[in-house]
Amino acid sequence: MNDMKVFSGRAHPELAQRVCDYLGLSLGKLRIDTFPDGEIWCRIEQDVRGRDVFLVQPTCHPVNENLMELLILIDSFKRASAERITAVIPYFGYARQDRKDEGRVPITAKLAANLITRAGADRVVAMDLHAAQIQGFFDIPVDHLVGAPVIDAYFREMDFPREDIIVVSPDEGSIKRALSHAAGLAAPVAIVDKRRSGADSTKQANLIGGPVDGKIALIFDDMISTAGSICGAARMVREAGAKIVYLAATHGVLCGDAVRRISEAPIEGLVITDTIPLPAEKHLDRIKVLTVAPLLGEAVKRIHRNESVSGLFRRDARKESR
Amino acid sequence: MNDMKVFSGRAHPELAQRVCDYLGLSLGKLRIDTFPDGEIWCRIEQDVRGRDVFLVQPTCHPVNENLMELLILIDSFKRASAERITAVIPYFGYARQDRKDEGRVPITAKLAANLITRAGADRVVAMDLHAAQIQGFFDIPVDHLVGAPVIDAYFREMDFPREDIIVVSPDEGSIKRALSHAAGLAAPVAIVDKRRSGADSTKQANLIGGPVDGKIALIFDDMISTAGSICGAARMVREAGAKIVYLAATHGVLCGDAVRRISEAPIEGLVITDTIPLPAEKHLDRIKVLTVAPLLGEAVKRIHRNESVSGLFRRDARKESR
Amino acid sequence: MNDMKVFSGRAHPELAQRVCDYLGLSLGKLRIDTFPDGEIWCRIEQDVRGRDVFLVQPTCHPVNENLMELLILIDSFKRASAERITAVIPYFGYARQDRKDEGRVPITAKLAANLITRAGADRVVAMDLHAAQIQGFFDIPVDHLVGAPVIDAYFREMDFPREDIIVVSPDEGSIKRALSHAAGLAAPVAIVDKRRSGADSTKQANLIGGPVDGKIALIFDDMISTAGSICGAARMVREAGAKIVYLAATHGVLCGDAVRRISEAPIEGLVITDTIPLPAEKHLDRIKVLTVAPLLGEAVKRIHRNESVSGLFRRDARKESR
Amino acid sequence: MNDMKVFSGRAHPELAQRVCDYLGLSLGKLRIDTFPDGEIWCRIEQDVRGRDVFLVQPTCHPVNENLMELLILIDSFKRASAERITAVIPYFGYARQDRKDEGRVPITAKLAANLITRAGADRVVAMDLHAAQIQGFFDIPVDHLVGAPVIDAYFREMDFPREDIIVVSPDEGSIKRALSHAAGLAAPVAIVDKRRSGADSTKQANLIGGPVDGKIALIFDDMISTAGSICGAARMVREAGAKIVYLAATHGVLCGDAVRRISEAPIEGLVITDTIPLPAEKHLDRIKVLTVAPLLGEAVKRIHRNESVSGLFRRDARKESR
Amino acid sequence: MNDMKVFSGRAHPELAQRVCDYLGLSLGKLRIDTFPDGEIWCRIEQDVRGRDVFLVQPTCHPVNENLMELLILIDSFKRASAERITAVIPYFGYARQDRKDEGRVPITAKLAANLITRAGADRVVAMDLHAAQIQGFFDIPVDHLVGAPVIDAYFREMDFPREDIIVVSPDEGSIKRALSHAAGLAAPVAIVDKRRSGADSTKQANLIGGPVDGKIALIFDDMISTAGSICGAARMVREAGAKIVYLAATHGVLCGDAVRRISEAPIEGLVITDTIPLPAEKHLDRIKVLTVAPLLGEAVKRIHRNESVSGLFRRDARKESR
Amino acid sequence: MNDMKVFSGRAHPELAQRVCDYLGLSLGKLRIDTFPDGEIWCRIEQDVRGRDVFLVQPTCHPVNENLMELLILIDSFKRASAERITAVIPYFGYARQDRKDEGRVPITAKLAANLITRAGADRVVAMDLHAAQIQGFFDIPVDHLVGAPVIDAYFREMDFPREDIIVVSPDEGSIKRALSHAAGLAAPVAIVDKRRSGADSTKQANLIGGPVDGKIALIFDDMISTAGSICGAARMVREAGAKIVYLAATHGVLCGDAVRRISEAPIEGLVITDTIPLPAEKHLDRIKVLTVAPLLGEAVKRIHRNESVSGLFRRDARKESR
Repeated sequence: MNDMKVFSGRAHPELAQRVCDYLGLSLGKLRIDTFPDGEIWCRIEQDVRGRDVFLVQPTCHPVNENLMELLILIDSFKRASAERITAVIPYFGYARQDRKDEGRVPITAKLAANLITRAGADRVVAMDLHAAQIQGFFDIPVDHLVGAPVIDAYFREMDFPREDIIVVSPDEGSIKRALSHAAGLAAPVAIVDKRRSGADSTKQANLIGGPVDGKIALIFDDMISTAGSICGAARMVREAGAKIVYLAATHGVLCGDAVRRISEAPIEGLVITDTIPLPAEKHLDRIKVLTVAPLLGEAVKRIHRNESVSGLFRRDARKESR
Repeated sequence: MNDMKVFSGRAHPELAQRVCDYLGLSLGKLRIDTFPDGEIWCRIEQDVRGRDVFLVQPTCHPVNENLMELLILIDSFKRASAERITAVIPYFGYARQDRKDEGRVPITAKLAANLITRAGADRVVAMDLHAAQIQGFFDIPVDHLVGAPVIDAYFREMDFPREDIIVVSPDEGSIKRALSHAAGLAAPVAIVDKRRSGADSTKQANLIGGPVDGKIALIFDDMISTAGSICGAARMVREAGAKIVYLAATHGVLCGDAVRRISEAPIEGLVITDTIPLPAEKHLDRIKVLTVAPLLGEAVKRIHRNESVSGLFRRDARKESR
Repeated sequence: MNDMKVFSGRAHPELAQRVCDYLGLSLGKLRIDTFPDGEIWCRIEQDVRGRDVFLVQPTCHPVNENLMELLILIDSFKRASAERITAVIPYFGYARQDRKDEGRVPITAKLAANLITRAGADRVVAMDLHAAQIQGFFDIPVDHLVGAPVIDAYFREMDFPREDIIVVSPDEGSIKRALSHAAGLAAPVAIVDKRRSGADSTKQANLIGGPVDGKIALIFDDMISTAGSICGAARMVREAGAKIVYLAATHGVLCGDAVRRISEAPIEGLVITDTIPLPAEKHLDRIKVLTVAPLLGEAVKRIHRNESVSGLFRRDARKESR
Repeated sequence: MNDMKVFSGRAHPELAQRVCDYLGLSLGKLRIDTFPDGEIWCRIEQDVRGRDVFLVQPTCHPVNENLMELLILIDSFKRASAERITAVIPYFGYARQDRKDEGRVPITAKLAANLITRAGADRVVAMDLHAAQIQGFFDIPVDHLVGAPVIDAYFREMDFPREDIIVVSPDEGSIKRALSHAAGLAAPVAIVDKRRSGADSTKQANLIGGPVDGKIALIFDDMISTAGSICGAARMVREAGAKIVYLAATHGVLCGDAVRRISEAPIEGLVITDTIPLPAEKHLDRIKVLTVAPLLGEAVKRIHRNESVSGLFRRDARKESR
Repeated sequence: MNDMKVFSGRAHPELAQRVCDYLGLSLGKLRIDTFPDGEIWCRIEQDVRGRDVFLVQPTCHPVNENLMELLILIDSFKRASAERITAVIPYFGYARQDRKDEGRVPITAKLAANLITRAGADRVVAMDLHAAQIQGFFDIPVDHLVGAPVIDAYFREMDFPREDIIVVSPDEGSIKRALSHAAGLAAPVAIVDKRRSGADSTKQANLIGGPVDGKIALIFDDMISTAGSICGAARMVREAGAKIVYLAATHGVLCGDAVRRISEAPIEGLVITDTIPLPAEKHLDRIKVLTVAPLLGEAVKRIHRNESVSGLFRRDARKESR
Repeated sequence: MNDMKVFSGRAHPELAQRVCDYLGLSLGKLRIDTFPDGEIWCRIEQDVRGRDVFLVQPTCHPVNENLMELLILIDSFKRASAERITAVIPYFGYARQDRKDEGRVPITAKLAANLITRAGADRVVAMDLHAAQIQGFFDIPVDHLVGAPVIDAYFREMDFPREDIIVVSPDEGSIKRALSHAAGLAAPVAIVDKRRSGADSTKQANLIGGPVDGKIALIFDDMISTAGSICGAARMVREAGAKIVYLAATHGVLCGDAVRRISEAPIEGLVITDTIPLPAEKHLDRIKVLTVAPLLGEAVKRIHRNESVSGLFRRDARKESR
């Protein structure tokens, strides 16, 4: 494994270190600075010719800084003659801009994929992409890992009575995810429907499915940004009679008023992973951060050794029939 | 408009003719043959240098024949020096293979997009793509039209009492579509949940939401292939008390046992559009085919005249909040 | 050799098996299905990361199905991180559409080459391309094998008196090939000239060269499609006095009325190779099928081992002088 | 000119407005937001199909934000079917990272050029690129404008006695520029040499050329970042006897301690242009900002009308002889 | 037509001037020099923004100089923002290196096509390419003109008795061409077969077809390089009894000993065209040079006006049957 | 090292041989011819599949021949399935055409970079590029070696009294280079300023810096073409009192009147390297040729072994401050 090197951008060096710990490697030496005029500069501080390079950099907040830094690093490694460059992007920013849902807007997720490819990446490792189709935005191989098993394992260890659990989707876009967790936890499902009702045009959410009365409600999403929507769902589920509510998501973006909302929400806890760094000022007792480093490390190891990674992939429990 | 030409492959010349009728143009002259060894051959029978060419070809059954024919036509028009080639693909085959949901499978929808681009298309007009993200599979501009208004208009003309209508999603993947129709028709929504129940592992579908009892249920999907799933949903909704059931979809693929299933299903009717030709042997009295030719024709005209097409686009009633 | 894998599409699994037998390998595990709507789906059933993959798929009838299947397979192997993908295409469909001989037609052979490259093939092994220039349609390396030695060896084993043999070109396009065989067999050559005579505009073929009277005429072509032309040549040569006539070609396309024509032609036999599968209903006693599997297998082995393949190449006996 | 549209990113809308004023056009309607998680979103608020679009966006501080915003805008306009997209980049960030002067560093200026091209720009208008070779980093046409005439005109209006002026290059990298200004102003030149002297290894700058005693020294650079180097040169020139010192540069980056240094330097004034916005807190009385809007506007107009722009180009007074 | 410009490299300005004369245009102003170190330099001396540019440059001897000059000119016009650049290449050098007929050789004709495309040409006009498949080496449109009608018209004007004419192919590679001329002139055909005879290995040419006794033999090729082969054919045909022999070819390369051979050959004359300049020292009374300028001029005019060029194309009298 | 092969074009086989001698390898077998019509042809005479190929070819005079030959060789090696092709280009022709310093000229250095990449090179080794930015013209890795240490070592061995040496830049474009040598030799610097004086427009050169009186002046440039400029500088420095003058440059282009000028110049000697072959008729006693073969050989070895090459890189002593 001595021709494999793991490097970290400045987005999340702790995660990169944890991946290295898993692999028993020391992190590659790399100097990155920002000049007074805001330009990023870097220099790889060890030889990388012919090496199999893995670059860990979630493109989380500040997304443009982190994405440009990733591109600059890729350019550096390519010009330094690395044999292969794998961009390990645990959180893929701009993923929600994955289609034109109205005229004259960009598809920034595709743009980002094109930029990463153009800069010279040979392959990508991603986690819980907002839409699985983003894999197809790349023509280089993408290994798409899934955080759900890490989260489900955490809940299973809590040993809730199985019949008390109900899985809740906070909106219609997350139903597939909710159904997948429900299958994993052998629990029923309910959906929060946030449509304005047709008749009186007042905004009022309804629960489809259920019931949640007296239940332990686990609300799953892929990412939590401002937390407005999912905390609203938590409140509604609580009002509908749930006795305990947990929120869970792979990506804890937690921007805007998210931390305040979470601290005020009628929940027992929020479970996220470390795909995005959680700065100290956002730490709450009720936020539990699980690590995906072993998952990423295992993927990195298998990719380097040409072993199958598909066991770590998302496997949709529910494929489309024809 | 005399430097605009509309041509048709052999997949659906009737639709191309209807588009021309809308535009007041005659269809471009094009000869396409299949040699005895199965190879496609074509010759453009009029000058197209510097023309703005629109090629109508849904890549429906037989999908590989129709896709290759489209690619060969694009190559011909490019080498014949057409100014711009717009591939009008009312039905985009392979759209469901849009992601790797397990290891070592292709993303054929992306492959098809790459092939169309590589052959030389300058832009694409598509309709009701199975996933909106497929737009991003292309780096050339895509105008993504939506058939829902054509179908909703048809149902509105039926003048059902508004409070009798319930919109039903036949599975969890179609919920967004159902909610969009529900918003258009100011109706409530129900979802068929086809999961195996966790407890006893028998396959049993449930209705989430509702109730459907005594209602006119409209079940929407983007395409109907073997019709097994949607006819099952129809039966279940009927058993749950719905008095009338309609099925509706933009794309009537109707393959395998679809026609038999539809003829036997407890439904009042099936509404589809003419994005795919319906051969005579598949005509049933209960199948109503609406035409999208005016929609396509209008898009073609606006594209040629550099006018905005976004009014014809899908406008998701329900954008994601952050 | 254990990091080399040979896989087969559905075009000609028997040939792929023979290649594997030659190599002492078992055929790679691959599942390919056609859905009821005609879409092809595949899944590679074993790990191929970092492997040197050879994909055997002649793009014979049904050419569009087989070509699309090849492209989909290439996409799958690329996304599954194969180290190198060699498309082994014993028969290259659309090869005769290799130039624009009139206005506004495609160059489909070039299109096919572009599609194969775009899908992600790293190199190509082909056999007896209709025009040698098709190698240049690719920018990836092409190893161009030649079937003539296999056929010539067969005829040599027949031990005809050398002075009785005459090689006949069935038309002016095949003269180079005929001269090459004639050199190999140390025999004279004659050419069938199918021009309309200038004077009376009736279509009448002439023999240029010869004489064929009392000779064993061997008529060579690269492929036999409908067999109309070559069987006409056989009849004419027979009428000109040849005592025995054999037809031979690398690629036995045998479409349309080919089998009937061959069964009725005044010939002793037809010799082809197994670059294209010959279905049971086309088997005639007078058709002899030679195998090119050892040739393909040897090429695959040498490519994998980085040994020279040029000994297996077409070596034009007659290079252009300047 | 009604099919020409000028749009502005958020880097410098005032400059874009001034360009529009010059052209007698109103600025194109464009909405750009930053979401709470830092992602940029935009929507073009008017139709741009078939239009000739000019996008004004210097990639100044914050450079990564402004560059990503430029890329996203280009993607939007391309997908909105603009006929041609010209990126007007008055200040090109990362220009100083234009070569590998040591091992394992990026060439970020080339990366930026690649990204802009990949996003879909059809051409670029730039001003006073740090190295003229950056034009060659693009394969799309680049119109390279030069700000020197604007600055020279300002100094000429001051009506200094011609024999009192001396042009000073603040370091050896700016000599070509100094010589060009010296030619324009018909003045002699001196160079500040910042080498450590070989003998005693103390860092001590020398003046090569001159003399500057009693002169009005004009020190020119292409850009002023932290101003450390150029203010040191001013101090040195003053100590060498110059009676008045002016600094001038096209690009007023003015980062880090620049404003403090300039306010404390022994200079009469600093002349810059508006290629980069100067925020209110950086305004000093001694800083004079000239506008390049007429220059940019004229270039935009000529590009749109297919008229020659080369009159506005940098014309090196001193071409290399061979 | 005032937005069309015709420019000439230094390979053949006379031909470019003749094309302009046909079009009633003056030749574009362009300065091209060779520096003492052999580097080519050029400057376009008039504005070409948005113009439809045609660049006339056969890549004849000295082929590498002329090809590089063509590439440099294309780069200049592209960077000068020409709307469209058509490379008019009446003689395409390296055309005979169009395939790998042995291992480890280049396909230089494909390389040249790639270089021309990469430099920025939008389309190509070529004449009598050595192999028609070279069109497919380009993915940009190629208009492939044919010189045969110009030559046939010249012979028809000579008013030979039709029954006295025989068309002769100087080798087996030119048979298609010979048959095409034979069809045009309503004459029979003979082929010179240069094979070594199998028996005694002495090199001895034979005539296939004929007879030529007492006939006026017209020997056609696409190009005449050293003239060794075609003059040998002339001698042989004469020895076989032909009373008069003419040689004819589109491209008069005439290198090596060609002029001497032609002056000594037993021929009445050699007919070539002006696709390649014939320097004064190569002029012989027996060499007749026809001009293709009207053909090229007409093609240029039609391409510019978006009119059909296919009437000027090669139309193979003899398409392949299937 | 047995999978590494070094081949030479015809530009400078002696240098290639010296590189091989350094490496203890024999030169690869390659046949290159020029046909009578000027076309280059080559055949690789040994197997190169999977080998790591280094191609030594400076693109010196005749530049177009040598550049085309390089491209053709690259194409051959690519099609012959070399694993990696490194173009070793000790002198990079067209390097001075690296920017548009006026309208409507090419950027031929970029064009050359594009052609080399398009032909199929995987990486480049270059030496003393005229502008360091040319590295960025490539997107493939470039190792940029520097000849200065070889030349400085030669002068150091001469053991001049250190205080007698002055380094002279022959014009303003070479100042950086002069300062770099001055740092290496711990010497002061002077600059020849060739501007026309503003006042009287007569051309008169001045010395900036100095003094040179009584000194040993070492005048450095990167290349010497016609030698007019540098010999003029020598004369001027001598007239200004220098007692001894040496000229030195990495690249001895020596075209036009260079040899005569050097023989007549008031210099002690000219030091160049063997990046370009010096034909016998250009040998003068006063010209000393140093070899860079060990430098190139070491770079080749390290590249092949994936060891760091940056120790051999140009390291600008004087990086830009911000």
